[in-house]
Amino acid sequence: MYQKMKAYIQEYHMLQEQDKVIAGVSGGPDSICLLFMLLRLKKEMKIEVRAVHVHHGIREGGADADEAYVREICRKWDVDLAVFHEDVPEYARRHKLTLEEAGRDVRRQCLEKAGDAWGGAKIALAHHQDDNVETLLLNLSRGCGLKGLGGIPPAEGRYIRPLLPFRKQEIELYLKKREISYCTDETNQEEHYTRNRIRARVLPYLEKEVNDQAVRHMAQTIGEMRSLAAYVGQETERFFHLCVRKEAGGGLVIREEDYRKVPEALRSYVLHEALCRAAGKRKDIEAVHVASLQELMGKQTGKKAHLPYRLEGVRCYEGIRIRKREEEETHSYREIPPVSLRVFDRTDPDIRFPDTPYTKWFDYDIIKSTVKIRHREAGDYLTINRSGNTQKLKQYFINEKIPREERDRIWLAADGQEILWIVGLRQNQKYQITDRTKRILEIEFYGGKEDDGKDQCNDPGRGSDTEN
Amino acid sequence: MYQKMKAYIQEYHMLQEQDKVIAGVSGGPDSICLLFMLLRLKKEMKIEVRAVHVHHGIREGGADADEAYVREICRKWDVDLAVFHEDVPEYARRHKLTLEEAGRDVRRQCLEKAGDAWGGAKIALAHHQDDNVETLLLNLSRGCGLKGLGGIPPAEGRYIRPLLPFRKQEIELYLKKREISYCTDETNQEEHYTRNRIRARVLPYLEKEVNDQAVRHMAQTIGEMRSLAAYVGQETERFFHLCVRKEAGGGLVIREEDYRKVPEALRSYVLHEALCRAAGKRKDIEAVHVASLQELMGKQTGKKAHLPYRLEGVRCYEGIRIRKREEEETHSYREIPPVSLRVFDRTDPDIRFPDTPYTKWFDYDIIKSTVKIRHREAGDYLTINRSGNTQKLKQYFINEKIPREERDRIWLAADGQEILWIVGLRQNQKYQITDRTKRILEIEFYGGKEDDGKDQCNDPGRGSDTEN
Repeated sequence: MYQKMKAYIQEYHMLQEQDKVIAGVSGGPDSICLLFMLLRLKKEMKIEVRAVHVHHGIREGGADADEAYVREICRKWDVDLAVFHEDVPEYARRHKLTLEEAGRDVRRQCLEKAGDAWGGAKIALAHHQDDNVETLLLNLSRGCGLKGLGGIPPAEGRYIRPLLPFRKQEIELYLKKREISYCTDETNQEEHYTRNRIRARVLPYLEKEVNDQAVRHMAQTIGEMRSLAAYVGQETERFFHLCVRKEAGGGLVIREEDYRKVPEALRSYVLHEALCRAAGKRKDIEAVHVASLQELMGKQTGKKAHLPYRLEGVRCYEGIRIRKREEEETHSYREIPPVSLRVFDRTDPDIRFPDTPYTKWFDYDIIKSTVKIRHREAGDYLTINRSGNTQKLKQYFINEKIPREERDRIWLAADGQEILWIVGLRQNQKYQITDRTKRILEIEFYGGKEDDGKDQCNDPGRGSDTEN
Repeated sequence: MYQKMKAYIQEYHMLQEQDKVIAGVSGGPDSICLLFMLLRLKKEMKIEVRAVHVHHGIREGGADADEAYVREICRKWDVDLAVFHEDVPEYARRHKLTLEEAGRDVRRQCLEKAGDAWGGAKIALAHHQDDNVETLLLNLSRGCGLKGLGGIPPAEGRYIRPLLPFRKQEIELYLKKREISYCTDETNQEEHYTRNRIRARVLPYLEKEVNDQAVRHMAQTIGEMRSLAAYVGQETERFFHLCVRKEAGGGLVIREEDYRKVPEALRSYVLHEALCRAAGKRKDIEAVHVASLQELMGKQTGKKAHLPYRLEGVRCYEGIRIRKREEEETHSYREIPPVSLRVFDRTDPDIRFPDTPYTKWFDYDIIKSTVKIRHREAGDYLTINRSGNTQKLKQYFINEKIPREERDRIWLAADGQEILWIVGLRQNQKYQITDRTKRILEIEFYGGKEDDGKDQCNDPGRGSDTEN
């Protein structure tokens, strides 16, 4: 296993002589094995190794014992250790994140802080093959393209993952043989988190019922896709430069003539790249936005497509121009959403069900990304009944005969592309409070009361907002 | 749904005016919907439609009722129907297939026969989005590359699948709204088949626990991968012609100089293509064979790699030569394996446990592909204990100190790359008969008795063949 790790480190150029590496050590088997292996490597290669442990501030679940164990083993193995004491639950509350997300953010911040303080050291994480395959299934379920099929990156900036080619059971066996003990991460045992549920249910099921090498096979596919994604990335870059022209002011023009020369399979990647460059961000740029640009290429000059980050695509003589949305400027006073958000426990005795059309409750734990208050975008949809049927927002507007010019001004509470609430008009049925709801997201919208009579929030004639 | 199907048919150029189409109609919701939609299309487009029903010869499970229903609906909808009566269980026995595999083969044969008799008509199958996503998960679990990620082909030769973009529930809803009844396919309800288990367990779990649009998201990824696979296929073809030279006698030479110009991510595809061309077949050419060629490129002139279909790779000055294995000719009398195979039920009262080292029993239902009797190939391995640990066949030979020249002559019973039995030497632990075994594969090897004393089968000193 050690030899295989060395070969893997070399394959992805993870470490060189003189490198400094910080190992993130929770005390669980994976990170203990990682630290052990890095220390073994240190004897062979001229690298320096330190450990960082983050106490997440939740006393239940044995976090104190974990810290004590990590302190003990680092003393025994003679490795420098820095311990951070953080308050993950508080961080989660403040940033409206799940404990899992908050934990990951906080750990990353501590590791990077320690790395910066130690001359920009590399950071080694203990992700393994089971993690990687779980990520693949999560990505597939949540929707992903080629990049998501590549799973967890072995090396990404300063982060390296030397244990990625090993099964979890290989790691545990390796420690057992060497009589190295470790802490049992209780959060891993709980099926509370989606990832753990995939680990506990789906993967063993596939291994038992379909193919006993299922995890290894999927890991192999991940490797192939990672390599292919790198190639497609290069090709996309090449074709992007062939057909995209930058404009003054941050806009872009995709020239149709050259765009037609791009192989069909790469066109969506080129458009995606163009959108990311125009937005200056890669997050939240989805297949549906790329599709709306593709559609636009087939339309007449002057036609437009709404894009995220207040961008719009305009069909022009040359092809497609991507630029900041013009209307944003004229209506810019609207761009600060007149809204307040609050998350609280359903068991909180002080809560009272809101009885105004401007304050709504949603099941917080159903929300997948961070809720945004924004105007409409291509691809927006909502779930319209309990059976889970969905409707495009555009179709809703058409059915309700809402004038085109008004549609862009209507406020939406959005979870990615799914609309929780068309403010003043309709709520998404999926996010309704039920008996199973644990945490409630309250959105209070005070724009409706202050705004002029034409505002959508003050139009009670347009259908009831509460359907249940 | 009808409009979407029309668009889909157009997108994949499935049908043109004047086309003749045969719909395979089992009587279940999917195929009834397919027939209904094709008949609707017939009114709009100048196509001809006929139906074919295959009675699989198993009376239990309502096959007679299915046939009666299909006859009735075809009469009602005024469509020509041909009914085939086949004996699928007998076919399965004769070809050593599972009932599921046999059923598929027999149906295909009937449909093609009907299609040929009707002037080479196209054949429409009722696969839907759930089938497609199930296929993706099966492919991933069994090991697949880019091609497998593309799921079920929408159009493939004469076969077309117009319902591929629809969820199973959409199809059922469509029929319900129109009050069209259908038969319930009982084999679909049973969790007997792997595919049904994925349908019943894994997909609902992912939809419930991870993302309620999981199936749609995966279908989208399948679409992207299908398009990418087409592109990679073209690029592979281009680079194949750049660096492969055909030789007289069916061999190939991969020229190193040009091979180095192939983008890294495409090299394995180019080598795979070279192997397929040299073999004249695409089946059973695995990643492990490609990897052995890749390894060979880094070795000295004269080194060899064993390849399937009696091919070998030889490192030569120019690069790699792929050719028929030479030794095959000198030992060609060995190439008819002296063996007989038989499958029977464990409950058969006449069976007696074999007590010779030349007759062995294996759990037939564990076997994934078709058992082959052959000599060793790169990538062969076997499971050596009940915990599922595996060992490379090569390592086994090294450990057992079996001379190199003998290794190529030893007979193997192989399930893909996994060796069931190193004849006369060792059995794979995974395929052992247990209490749960339903069907037994008996391999009787009579070569050991007739051959000369040097044969591996007659060497009792080389460890016991039965370990339990």
